[in-house]
Amino acid sequence: MSEQRNLSINGDRLWQSLMDMAKIGATPKGGVCRLALTDVDKAGRDLFVDWCRAAGCSITVDRMGNIFARRPGRNNDLAPVVTGSHLDSQPTGGRFDGVYGVLAGLEVVRSLNDLGLETEHPVEVAVWTNEEGSRFAPAMVASGVFAGVFDLDYGLSRADPDGKTMGEELARIGYAGDAPVGRPVHAYFEAHIEQGPILEAEGKTIGVVTDAQGQRWYELNITGVESHAGPTPMTRRKDALLGAARIVDLVNRIGHQFAPRACATVGMMQVYPNSRNVIPGKVFMTVDFRHPEDATLAEMDKAMREGVAKICDEIGLGAEIDQIFYYAPVHFDDACIDAVRKGVAEHGFTARDMVSGAGHDACYLARVAPTGMVFIPCIDGISHNEVEDATPEWVSAGGQVLLRAILEKAGQVN
Amino acid sequence: MSEQRNLSINGDRLWQSLMDMAKIGATPKGGVCRLALTDVDKAGRDLFVDWCRAAGCSITVDRMGNIFARRPGRNNDLAPVVTGSHLDSQPTGGRFDGVYGVLAGLEVVRSLNDLGLETEHPVEVAVWTNEEGSRFAPAMVASGVFAGVFDLDYGLSRADPDGKTMGEELARIGYAGDAPVGRPVHAYFEAHIEQGPILEAEGKTIGVVTDAQGQRWYELNITGVESHAGPTPMTRRKDALLGAARIVDLVNRIGHQFAPRACATVGMMQVYPNSRNVIPGKVFMTVDFRHPEDATLAEMDKAMREGVAKICDEIGLGAEIDQIFYYAPVHFDDACIDAVRKGVAEHGFTARDMVSGAGHDACYLARVAPTGMVFIPCIDGISHNEVEDATPEWVSAGGQVLLRAILEKAGQVN
Repeated sequence: MSEQRNLSINGDRLWQSLMDMAKIGATPKGGVCRLALTDVDKAGRDLFVDWCRAAGCSITVDRMGNIFARRPGRNNDLAPVVTGSHLDSQPTGGRFDGVYGVLAGLEVVRSLNDLGLETEHPVEVAVWTNEEGSRFAPAMVASGVFAGVFDLDYGLSRADPDGKTMGEELARIGYAGDAPVGRPVHAYFEAHIEQGPILEAEGKTIGVVTDAQGQRWYELNITGVESHAGPTPMTRRKDALLGAARIVDLVNRIGHQFAPRACATVGMMQVYPNSRNVIPGKVFMTVDFRHPEDATLAEMDKAMREGVAKICDEIGLGAEIDQIFYYAPVHFDDACIDAVRKGVAEHGFTARDMVSGAGHDACYLARVAPTGMVFIPCIDGISHNEVEDATPEWVSAGGQVLLRAILEKAGQVN
Repeated sequence: MSEQRNLSINGDRLWQSLMDMAKIGATPKGGVCRLALTDVDKAGRDLFVDWCRAAGCSITVDRMGNIFARRPGRNNDLAPVVTGSHLDSQPTGGRFDGVYGVLAGLEVVRSLNDLGLETEHPVEVAVWTNEEGSRFAPAMVASGVFAGVFDLDYGLSRADPDGKTMGEELARIGYAGDAPVGRPVHAYFEAHIEQGPILEAEGKTIGVVTDAQGQRWYELNITGVESHAGPTPMTRRKDALLGAARIVDLVNRIGHQFAPRACATVGMMQVYPNSRNVIPGKVFMTVDFRHPEDATLAEMDKAMREGVAKICDEIGLGAEIDQIFYYAPVHFDDACIDAVRKGVAEHGFTARDMVSGAGHDACYLARVAPTGMVFIPCIDGISHNEVEDATPEWVSAGGQVLLRAILEKAGQVN
């Protein structure tokens, strides 16, 4: 493999492309708002397509609006190695989440051109539609259709809060392609910012992502008796918020109990009637459990159900627990993980194995293709926020590793 | 006092008046919606005025729209004995809260007529404007102006959510009187439903109200760090909702610690960003502390501040605590309390001393006149609710006690 040593991407060009793309939908606070299938999303897609055509790629758009920019291989009958992510953002999103994986893929193509390298398999850079799910729920819907998780009709019929469907909006912005959704992929890689604080805190440049956490999402309705905060003695109260508060503490304890790999979060709570002098009669709350092992998620589920029952019995409350979403843990492909590790070793980057805490298009791709992910740090672990940031060095390092991993799977010819 | 024995009100007539008044603003669920200074409130006032005129009373309306129906005494230079409450309701209010005190007063006047009794002092039945505060904040604003707690201009300028002021709305419905607000009152009595569960639970018919709880209201802002529920390890979280939850538990423990007379409630909580997969970065919450003794309220304040500081230190959160409202404890007039006790003894009702947990017009009147209150039970302690209910027996018993107390203070002549 000596001929592959010190193969370099152009880190400055990758950084500049990120900054240029960040102008589309730029917010005053330095982030971006590029909601899926808006005019701004179209402008981002157009710029990406222009860049890819300039790099000699052909463009295919499938019926979910997923874009594939293809650099031919020596044997174009072989399934492509695909890399990419998404261009859509949160309403108050940053300059890296999603777009980094897309433009790191473009930079790999540009660098292969600069280096005059041919690959056995074609290499494609993918843009997945509506990864964030901020405008059209659920998240990762178009990569989900690609992987057979959702039907095409389901995907196209997802509607935004104004009732506009993805199908209508794809047609409106000119990205309702005619290619079928889903086809063989030889390998899939996705580069992404970590969206958590671990790499930066440990001074590591690359996260070798071995797994993605499984998730269980719950909705709880806790029911007590609404009554007047003045004339109702403490001993006669059935305070739904007191129960909910103890459940928040319980969920946190479960997270610590199954540390270090468990996460347990109550993110949403709505109190009824939410009046300062009325004892709350009802609380709606959510629970988000994550762990890379299904068996542990089941243990967490059991601990929560038992704890909630005990808390509610003590106060005299009713509790309904609905698991509304289940997302199985993903173990990425060992050969793809190994290809990422080789890229790290090649360049001598500091690295550690990681479990992805967030969902990514790669989690669905992993169902239909050997898949790996490359993480780079983000400053203070902050993401889904206009202040989201990363350094040019991290951005460049992730691109280097991605190039190396793609070459490993696509087969370097010359 | 033998000539006063077995003086009876007409319980059936009082019940019928309550049911007739409940038709004005009746809701499909059996309650009433009679917000202050609406057309419905005007209709209720008009009916009350008609009834009082039919009972031989003269009507005075002051500049805050407070209505006084006066039955002359033998010596009309003496300050009147006043009784009453309010006709306005919560948006989903019941048939008794407020209106019971007004119509029990009217029934006392009617019964004095029936019995051919003259009193030394005039007797007046008062309707206080906007007690609930549901349409115009704060609550009890017009009795507050009467008692000198608020300026007249402040009272008239209170605006509803549409920007309409009390002054404008009083003029619109024809209840902007020209009498000055505030004048000497020889004694004030107010009959009211308990709005809590104690009397019914103990099988008592009458609550002899000795005190009204003092109140301290707080707003707390708890600040952590918003971050992604997936990639943020449990040990690196600054979860504002976890802190808020522990504060809810703390507030509850403080309520129990100063039992049986303390009440401690978190009624309102708002979580930011309130997203199921985001660790909350900020929580706004309220605390309502009540106790009949000021020194205990100060101890509860101290316990909360120390507890909040400890909880927030442990998690790494910021906390701001603002006391936004203070309502001093009220001890009612011993002679008025005694007059109520005599009424109870006269009729052999089961009774207990009580502390009012809620605010009432009587709490402000107590600042400018000897004051007492008479409570009757309400079913299941439920109030501020369309299902609010009471039995004809309780309603009648409260009227009997009110008659006896008024005679005691007004001086029975014949």
